[in-house]
Amino acid sequence: MKNVLIIGCGLLGSSLIRVISKKKLAKKIFIYEKSKKNIAKIKKLKLPGILVKKPQDIILQSDLIIFCTPMSEYERIILKINNYLNSNQIITDVGSSKLEFTKIIKKKLKKQISWTSSHPIAGSEVSGPEYGRADLFENKWCVLIKDKKTNLKHLKFLSSFWKKIGSKIVVMNADKHDKIFSITSHLPHLIAYNLVKSAQDFEKKQKYNLIKYSAGGLRDFSRIAASNEIMWRDVFFHNKTNISKAISLFIKNLNAFKKDINSKNNKSILKKLTHTKKVRTKIIKLKQDINKPDFGRS
Amino acid sequence: MKNVLIIGCGLLGSSLIRVISKKKLAKKIFIYEKSKKNIAKIKKLKLPGILVKKPQDIILQSDLIIFCTPMSEYERIILKINNYLNSNQIITDVGSSKLEFTKIIKKKLKKQISWTSSHPIAGSEVSGPEYGRADLFENKWCVLIKDKKTNLKHLKFLSSFWKKIGSKIVVMNADKHDKIFSITSHLPHLIAYNLVKSAQDFEKKQKYNLIKYSAGGLRDFSRIAASNEIMWRDVFFHNKTNISKAISLFIKNLNAFKKDINSKNNKSILKKLTHTKKVRTKIIKLKQDINKPDFGRS
Repeated sequence: MKNVLIIGCGLLGSSLIRVISKKKLAKKIFIYEKSKKNIAKIKKLKLPGILVKKPQDIILQSDLIIFCTPMSEYERIILKINNYLNSNQIITDVGSSKLEFTKIIKKKLKKQISWTSSHPIAGSEVSGPEYGRADLFENKWCVLIKDKKTNLKHLKFLSSFWKKIGSKIVVMNADKHDKIFSITSHLPHLIAYNLVKSAQDFEKKQKYNLIKYSAGGLRDFSRIAASNEIMWRDVFFHNKTNISKAISLFIKNLNAFKKDINSKNNKSILKKLTHTKKVRTKIIKLKQDINKPDFGRS
Repeated sequence: MKNVLIIGCGLLGSSLIRVISKKKLAKKIFIYEKSKKNIAKIKKLKLPGILVKKPQDIILQSDLIIFCTPMSEYERIILKINNYLNSNQIITDVGSSKLEFTKIIKKKLKKQISWTSSHPIAGSEVSGPEYGRADLFENKWCVLIKDKKTNLKHLKFLSSFWKKIGSKIVVMNADKHDKIFSITSHLPHLIAYNLVKSAQDFEKKQKYNLIKYSAGGLRDFSRIAASNEIMWRDVFFHNKTNISKAISLFIKNLNAFKKDINSKNNKSILKKLTHTKKVRTKIIKLKQDINKPDFGRS
């Protein structure tokens, strides 16, 4: 690979720039960023890439194009660069939901052009280029989407690219991806937002200053609920069928818990409260978290 | 204060023993613990206290008695020690819900004996004496319950005691306490359990191995859902009216989110997703968490 173009330079885009530069994976790194605020930050941070004003200007020179903007921006940018694309270029993105966007992308992209979608399971509640880091993808899963029309050559290239970045690869189709992440990522984020919203409603109604006692649990959710709203709106809207089902399952289970609590059903509630521990053991075993108690951060 | 009796030596009890000993706040520390497993651990850890076989044997020598067992154990122990108590002894506990237990305690306790309830907002998902630490209560809130019949002398003593331990004091009545913590602590824990339960149900139905992708959000909830089941059953059962209301508010809000998602109501969802950020800002300002992005623990 000679040159790479990073479209959108927030947390993920800027992390890619840092690691690509650090590991010398490209000759030139081009950066296209719309926000003036972010452009100023990129200059101040002296990120190792060349800022371009219009993506279409350097498309011909780019062997790998990675979309790191919120997903709702993809269409606008595709329309700008479509005429300059050729079938040898590898195009990917880092979006968190896949099926619906794959359809939009396929409709808008010029024929013969392949788009091979990636989803690195890495991030944080913060956004912006100042938070990016070269080790963001290290030892994290990167899901590569393989459907009927996937260009296998591009898939192979991207698999090798993400491995060089430090990620572990798993390949699945968009449908399976969206189902899995509706439960492991999208629903947890929605729940966190919803819990904080409920605390705000309660505070307003009761006129209690309760935020100061948030160390008992609410604090951890508030961190997740501080994530980027544009990114998460896009995810929620574009995986709505799966998320809707996940919400229904969640509410069904919550009502069962409520019933156990109201009837003080000891056997039923203890079964639930102990069974969930198994997941924790599995998560530790799979190295998705460390086995160290959390007493709050200080 | 001369001697203190710690009843129940888990995470909180053993932390109290450590800090009382470290700060030399008592002449003798007595420990009553029912579980043989914990007794073996206490001996192995060489915790600085005297293990007693029956709490009634050393009640007369104890100036301060702190219940650190699950709340469902209180009644059994009160019945054992009731005849040995005198009105000068200060009795407290560290339970997480107050109103209903206050009623049970008042019914069971001998007349003239006061019980002044404490709730230190400190803990973790782990339990057992091996996890205790002398700094567990440092800079954490400790709620002291003041109702009509509270012994003000005892309240004053406990306020000074918890301050020496390192805590910040806030005084409120049991009703307000239970309302506030139903939202900031009890509901978040229930939600975490429920999310993990929903993920398990989904996994079973879809036969997807999804736990390995839990870094996208589920991981953080699984930690909270690994908390002690006996303690949380007691909390859920004994604050059921408030928790039930909190669940209803949560479900109402979740259904509103679902509606926004299904109808792709941009304005309404963005209002919610941005509004919740204000709570995060407040939490940081109130020093209930640190302003450091979380990229996962390693």
